[in-house]
Amino acid sequence: MPETPVMPETAVAFIGLGTMGRPMAERLLAAGYRLTVHDRLPEAVKDLVAAGAAPAASAREAATGAEVAITMLPNGPHVREALTGPDGALAALRPGSVLIDMSTIDPPTAQELARTASDQGVRMLDAPVSGSSAGAADGTLTVMVGGDAGTLAEVRPLLDELGGRIVHCGGNGAGVSVKLANQIIAGTSMVAVAESYALARRLGVDPRLLFDVVSASSGDCWSLRTRPPVPGVLPSSPAEHDFRPGFKGALMCKDLDLALATAAAHAVDLPVTLRARELYARMSEEGLGERDFSAVFTLLATED
Amino acid sequence: MPETPVMPETAVAFIGLGTMGRPMAERLLAAGYRLTVHDRLPEAVKDLVAAGAAPAASAREAATGAEVAITMLPNGPHVREALTGPDGALAALRPGSVLIDMSTIDPPTAQELARTASDQGVRMLDAPVSGSSAGAADGTLTVMVGGDAGTLAEVRPLLDELGGRIVHCGGNGAGVSVKLANQIIAGTSMVAVAESYALARRLGVDPRLLFDVVSASSGDCWSLRTRPPVPGVLPSSPAEHDFRPGFKGALMCKDLDLALATAAAHAVDLPVTLRARELYARMSEEGLGERDFSAVFTLLATED
Repeated sequence: MPETPVMPETAVAFIGLGTMGRPMAERLLAAGYRLTVHDRLPEAVKDLVAAGAAPAASAREAATGAEVAITMLPNGPHVREALTGPDGALAALRPGSVLIDMSTIDPPTAQELARTASDQGVRMLDAPVSGSSAGAADGTLTVMVGGDAGTLAEVRPLLDELGGRIVHCGGNGAGVSVKLANQIIAGTSMVAVAESYALARRLGVDPRLLFDVVSASSGDCWSLRTRPPVPGVLPSSPAEHDFRPGFKGALMCKDLDLALATAAAHAVDLPVTLRARELYARMSEEGLGERDFSAVFTLLATED
Repeated sequence: MPETPVMPETAVAFIGLGTMGRPMAERLLAAGYRLTVHDRLPEAVKDLVAAGAAPAASAREAATGAEVAITMLPNGPHVREALTGPDGALAALRPGSVLIDMSTIDPPTAQELARTASDQGVRMLDAPVSGSSAGAADGTLTVMVGGDAGTLAEVRPLLDELGGRIVHCGGNGAGVSVKLANQIIAGTSMVAVAESYALARRLGVDPRLLFDVVSASSGDCWSLRTRPPVPGVLPSSPAEHDFRPGFKGALMCKDLDLALATAAAHAVDLPVTLRARELYARMSEEGLGERDFSAVFTLLATED
């Protein structure tokens, strides 16, 4: 049982090599961790193997012999399957190993999976991240951790390779709770920025001037600072590149769905988040789900 | 006609001595401007007279002999009455004088009043502000100016006493257009912060931790940074003092009403702003309209 902090050379299973998982796995490889990787898409595995990882045909195979297993998957059902399905990682993980789910899933599922893991001596953390794929590549993500503090201390050196800020949020489920609370604000404020730009454009306001004034006023927010939704304002904005993500609209829709379902289960009303979520759902309906979530602007913009 | 910048000693009419107007007028007095002041409430006038201003029984009387007239009133009808009503300022202002409306009103009314003023040789600017009453007292407001650039240059020394940032936004109406675009984001993101806190509280998340994590993540926004809606997080937050404003919920409701009416007139749909506006309207219905707009949280919070 690894009671001292994990160090490079540790055997790590990494399951889920998508937009976020791939650069994260690459950072761990570069830091000297021994990675065995799995993804549903063989292509994704192949790329990591070229970078030095060992391939695995299943989550179970990846977890065999691992001291730490990391999952970075789209949603709760994927995580459940990867952990407890027929070829799931939990069947292979030894007692004392640590399982870190870095996906954004709902708090009840995170808590239930932690109990299941605990029943066989595996310690689980929920550790979703905030930040873009660029942040994943730079290792500047914020990581919100739920679970035992001592377990976090053991794997902190590994998480430090991935994130610039590792925050212990409380017990199991607290990491994803904080993440969903963050997404409520990030997703809704992006729609507010889009509505602001839609009106300002019709009123003939210069979009660059609007950015300069509002980002220094009470309308300032991360969504505006990183994603003014029209070209010619900020070179790094997805709007400059036909809304190439960044963070996909479909994922923001999924995160707000999780927040709304969690709120409903606790009899909390989120009327504005609900309305924002409807717009992100419309992005997918109109074929924009794979675009950056700031492309929600295109649903609002009228012809000039 | 004052073609050189206005300087202290200039005769200024100041109309509207409310939460924002009063500290602004006090700053101009302290800077040496000769103020004649008017407000519907005699008490408000009396306080300014004690600070060195001359009293006026009407906007017209205040404007008599003034080179610059400033209005700081709740909304468009108030400004129209103060300027073009039977005792309005425009009847007294001489050709060449400058009229600065610092209220937040709708762009069409701002443009129409500027034309009316122009017809009698008075040059008008719309110059709404962003910032709290504390910002008005400190002279750190952002002032968004619509109108002629040369006219702005003339009155800039006076505006510099009131604001830390004076931004020329374009022609008449551009100042209030930018202000409304800002309010869409400020008002909606505050509701998002309130919804985030309502959910996080039910999930048992520590409110201070939530503030620390989200304000350093993609949920960061001015509404969160200045107004976490529960006590024990930020000493300067209105939530620490039973939501004493700050910026009143009734005024945010009014600003979003203006934004929505302006959007409707231009066939722009603002679905999330509309939903946020409904919550601010409910604040007034439930007797919370005079509280800070962050008290919108109390409409969402369920019992623990």
